[in-house]
Amino acid sequence: MAGQLVGFVGLGVMGRPMARNLLKAGFDLMVHDLNTAAVGEAVAAGARDGKSLEGVAEAGIVVTMLPDTPDVEAVLLGPGGLAEAMRRGSVLVDMSTISPIATRSFAEHLNARGVPMLDAPVSGGFQGAEAGTLSIMVGGEAEVLERCRPVLAAMGTTISHIGEAGAGQVCKACNQVAVAINIHAVAEAMTLAKKNGVDPARIRQALLGGFAQSKALDLHGQRVLDGNYKAGFRVQLQRKDLKIALEAGTASGTPLPVTALIQQLYGILDATGRGELDNSSLALLMQELAGITAEA
Amino acid sequence: MAGQLVGFVGLGVMGRPMARNLLKAGFDLMVHDLNTAAVGEAVAAGARDGKSLEGVAEAGIVVTMLPDTPDVEAVLLGPGGLAEAMRRGSVLVDMSTISPIATRSFAEHLNARGVPMLDAPVSGGFQGAEAGTLSIMVGGEAEVLERCRPVLAAMGTTISHIGEAGAGQVCKACNQVAVAINIHAVAEAMTLAKKNGVDPARIRQALLGGFAQSKALDLHGQRVLDGNYKAGFRVQLQRKDLKIALEAGTASGTPLPVTALIQQLYGILDATGRGELDNSSLALLMQELAGITAEA
Repeated sequence: MAGQLVGFVGLGVMGRPMARNLLKAGFDLMVHDLNTAAVGEAVAAGARDGKSLEGVAEAGIVVTMLPDTPDVEAVLLGPGGLAEAMRRGSVLVDMSTISPIATRSFAEHLNARGVPMLDAPVSGGFQGAEAGTLSIMVGGEAEVLERCRPVLAAMGTTISHIGEAGAGQVCKACNQVAVAINIHAVAEAMTLAKKNGVDPARIRQALLGGFAQSKALDLHGQRVLDGNYKAGFRVQLQRKDLKIALEAGTASGTPLPVTALIQQLYGILDATGRGELDNSSLALLMQELAGITAEA
Repeated sequence: MAGQLVGFVGLGVMGRPMARNLLKAGFDLMVHDLNTAAVGEAVAAGARDGKSLEGVAEAGIVVTMLPDTPDVEAVLLGPGGLAEAMRRGSVLVDMSTISPIATRSFAEHLNARGVPMLDAPVSGGFQGAEAGTLSIMVGGEAEVLERCRPVLAAMGTTISHIGEAGAGQVCKACNQVAVAINIHAVAEAMTLAKKNGVDPARIRQALLGGFAQSKALDLHGQRVLDGNYKAGFRVQLQRKDLKIALEAGTASGTPLPVTALIQQLYGILDATGRGELDNSSLALLMQELAGITAEA
């Protein structure tokens, strides 16, 4: 395990701490990113600079952690991409949150070249990435997951095998749908309380003890009480994730009316300059729409 | 405490087991309901038949547990109603789920006659009423709540003082908003999973471990897996409760777009003959709308 060569592409907000945890676990890490400062930081922490996708493709397991579907497509299937460069029998683990439909097509493409792929998106945010406590939702073959398990275990504590190729991304889409809708439940309930002159802290406390209990009420409800909408998980990213869920809905014939409405509300936040705030700022928006003066 | 005369009006699905728990706790219970069979049952269990609202009004504390705002209005303010019949210094405890706005007006009316009022709606459903484990959300004066606490403690385990008159009903409205939206989150997420060929049991399990966790995902998610939409808490009642929340929203200038949309979805269930099903049957509806054959 330790000393095994692992490739890593995408040293962004999430990728950086994930790469650090792979180094801590003793993997020989070969990194690549267009951001040379991020590469320099990883090298200072003990990684090697792969210099290109071809360089990273030497590894038996290559992890990608990229912003969106087109980024993954470019890195996998673009000129000089991993699909061309990786050896037969090595494994591609895409941990980005991207389209399940595109994921199935990427997996087919890589499989045809003898490179099995796992889709392994995460939840737990930057804090989970830092602490190595991410929850990882995996699609792909069980035996391939077993080969990659030590690598995933260096970054997360819960590794759930959901199903075949794309199932990890479907699970992540379902997760984001549920998280966003639960956050909006807090936003409407807390705004209704405030506008009716009732202490929202008491409402949160009472509701946490019953059927209305949710992680969102606990964590994001506290944010509403504190007027703290600093990200956390940004509006722009949640909006992108819901776009993926809605596309998966359209492609599969699944109407998602509330997800669609909430994605529009995130669009309002983004259009009015609040795209960098935490995704709990749906509560800020609902309060504004109710005429409560802004808190952020 | 024990032996104290308590009045009880409204021996419906919830009122019946609540009255039984008051008898078990040793209160001298004087009941009234237009349903003579329900009165007979309570008398057989040890209650006395008050025969009329005037009869029940003898008690120092009178509890009402009625279906909707107009029922409470008739019992309190109608001819021969409790407002006329109750003595100065006795207390009216309305445990129905009704309009917070009407509640404030009822409380003013009763106060003017020297009868303090608590609004004390409950959550926990029929099971909670049977077990005496209801969660009770109280609006009104703290000292009045203290006088009534032994009576409430015979019916519920969590008694939360939320604020002044009407605050209990505001809290209940917020609770129903959050519960209904959280249930709908489960409905959209599970339908998206099914239509994408992914095992919804694995999705539920994975999501319960992260930010998407909710009581609704736990309990109602299991209902979706079992195809069990037997009430529980009926669609018709949840629809009524959301109507109250929306009216409180309108009166206070609080837009509740998702609550409004979900109330319409409950309206579809009711209009298509599913008003008696459990309020988790939003999941049944979303699956139907996605072309998944009915399970109930």
